[in-house]
Amino acid sequence: MDEPIGDSSRTIDWVDDVIEIIDQRLLPDQYVVRRIEDVAGLVDAISSLAIRGAPALGVAGAMGVALAFRDTDPERDPGRFQQVVQSIREARPTAVNLARGVDRAYANVPEGRDAVLAEALAIRDEEVAASWSMSAYGADLVTELVKQSKIRTMTICNTGGLATVERGTALGVIQEIHEQGRLEEVIALETRPLLQGARLTSWELSRIGAPYRLVVDSAAPFLISRGATNIVLTGADRIAANGDTANKIGTYSLALAARRAAIPFVVVAPESTVDSATGTGAAIEIEDRGSAEVLSIRDIRIAPRDAKALNPAFDVTPVDLITALVTDRRVIRFDLGDTLDTVPPGARRGRSTEPETDRGR
Amino acid sequence: MDEPIGDSSRTIDWVDDVIEIIDQRLLPDQYVVRRIEDVAGLVDAISSLAIRGAPALGVAGAMGVALAFRDTDPERDPGRFQQVVQSIREARPTAVNLARGVDRAYANVPEGRDAVLAEALAIRDEEVAASWSMSAYGADLVTELVKQSKIRTMTICNTGGLATVERGTALGVIQEIHEQGRLEEVIALETRPLLQGARLTSWELSRIGAPYRLVVDSAAPFLISRGATNIVLTGADRIAANGDTANKIGTYSLALAARRAAIPFVVVAPESTVDSATGTGAAIEIEDRGSAEVLSIRDIRIAPRDAKALNPAFDVTPVDLITALVTDRRVIRFDLGDTLDTVPPGARRGRSTEPETDRGR
Repeated sequence: MDEPIGDSSRTIDWVDDVIEIIDQRLLPDQYVVRRIEDVAGLVDAISSLAIRGAPALGVAGAMGVALAFRDTDPERDPGRFQQVVQSIREARPTAVNLARGVDRAYANVPEGRDAVLAEALAIRDEEVAASWSMSAYGADLVTELVKQSKIRTMTICNTGGLATVERGTALGVIQEIHEQGRLEEVIALETRPLLQGARLTSWELSRIGAPYRLVVDSAAPFLISRGATNIVLTGADRIAANGDTANKIGTYSLALAARRAAIPFVVVAPESTVDSATGTGAAIEIEDRGSAEVLSIRDIRIAPRDAKALNPAFDVTPVDLITALVTDRRVIRFDLGDTLDTVPPGARRGRSTEPETDRGR
Repeated sequence: MDEPIGDSSRTIDWVDDVIEIIDQRLLPDQYVVRRIEDVAGLVDAISSLAIRGAPALGVAGAMGVALAFRDTDPERDPGRFQQVVQSIREARPTAVNLARGVDRAYANVPEGRDAVLAEALAIRDEEVAASWSMSAYGADLVTELVKQSKIRTMTICNTGGLATVERGTALGVIQEIHEQGRLEEVIALETRPLLQGARLTSWELSRIGAPYRLVVDSAAPFLISRGATNIVLTGADRIAANGDTANKIGTYSLALAARRAAIPFVVVAPESTVDSATGTGAAIEIEDRGSAEVLSIRDIRIAPRDAKALNPAFDVTPVDLITALVTDRRVIRFDLGDTLDTVPPGARRGRSTEPETDRGR
């Protein structure tokens, strides 16, 4: 399993007893695989966004606890060990998956380093399996929803292997369609302010040889209206109990345009993204990431010195604009009246009119 | 009339027998008033976008014909004079207003330089008058459409004095509302790919002391959905006979979001923007400005070397999403069933239920 990352498509892995990552700060200009050998290096990589994406951060956190054994022996100095582990947890305080990964691995500390590492690798493998599962369910759903044999799709932000471990969520589905020879083109949104689409999604699409063109974010709704795409596929940051979906800022405009053009708008996200404690999208608090990201692009100031900005990091798409949600464990057809309650995880498909045995994969 | 531009808000004027412009290439970093004393300098200023915006280009073209008398005497060498004038006309071949301004001034050449200059100044004055007229009609309409006493508005691209001569179209309306003490805030879209919002609109809003915040373009629809603004005001590049409106890419997404949020979406543009030869928006050809503007931001590459881009320069908003159109000669309330035919220029207002005498200004 632990092949060198240069030969796999994994953004993070455990190789020769250290963490190896693709340094996302340098993409697309440089492809650098970085070895991370201690917790200080990991904390730096996480806080500087060399590693990003919720699933990838979960894996990083768990592997970090294994690295911590190099810094300190938890039996000799448990207080110091806990401090080191806490520094990983706090490298990005708002990333829930990071803390969750750290905690899962940390629970195995009493059983020793091997048990911690095994748990970290299990989290990695779960993330990989979830990506493959979403790819397969998603590609089947695309076949169901799109009448044309060739798929022209549109996506926002980065939802590929760089954000997960390999393959990804929405971009994993796109890769699956590409591997099936059915992908005509991807229209990728550049995704201001941080340009994850231009920098990372393009790089991933180039890497797998998928045909794509980049657009400025504001061009996407119009291109949808002119028939440039026949399905929109996006990821999700958080899904409320009623299906309202928070995702990268700009997603909502795609859903509005897809509805007007009568094309499907599909969300692809792991089951862990569903937050049943939050009733509707109205209850989702919108994080403002501050003016700097808007007023400068890659460190070049683009606005007057006294300018201020609003910078909501994500938006909320109401469930009535969402055709379907694909997770690693189910497909919920909101357009057919399914809800998160009526299709429990494991049921796979919302279309009870069709035999489930034909639909699993 | 010919006060120094530093004391006025004019982006172009005739001062001490030469053209003076605000050099838009340098904004917002530097405010430089440039004197243009010959045709070669003018051609350079136009082709390098030191002067931009359809109305401003019309004025520049006409004033350029007056400058041409310095290069050549049209009586002694009419062929050479015509060549010089043609070089202005071709400085930006697709700018209809530039050619129109040149032609109007050129028609006066037989009557001598004073007549040419008088025509150029007349064009300038007409543009200024049109801007003031739109400001007044627009501000009245905003009062009519928005129930709240304080106006929170949103706009895209640059539609201010920099694009016209002074005041502007949508931004002229915003300035009017600000001068009336009713402006709470403007949310200005940065307007990728060329960032006219971040660079120019912010600068103009700072200059008049209007409160504003910049956003990335894709944040605007979501902010509309959360009630951040109570009216959207945009300009137009071309308006079809049925009212479908071509404007800067991104405009369509604002109209979609405004409709969903049930807030007014108003277009402000001079009468000359109405193209009655074009039946509907479907007949408007969409210019693609090429990949370079998308793949780089201010000369910094943001995507992989092999990346391609789609770059539609404008989009088309269907008339059913437009609440009203304000020109310098009329207000057409599409939401009340008015059309461009039922409200001829000069009728001012489409609401025939209200006495017109109360409504003019």
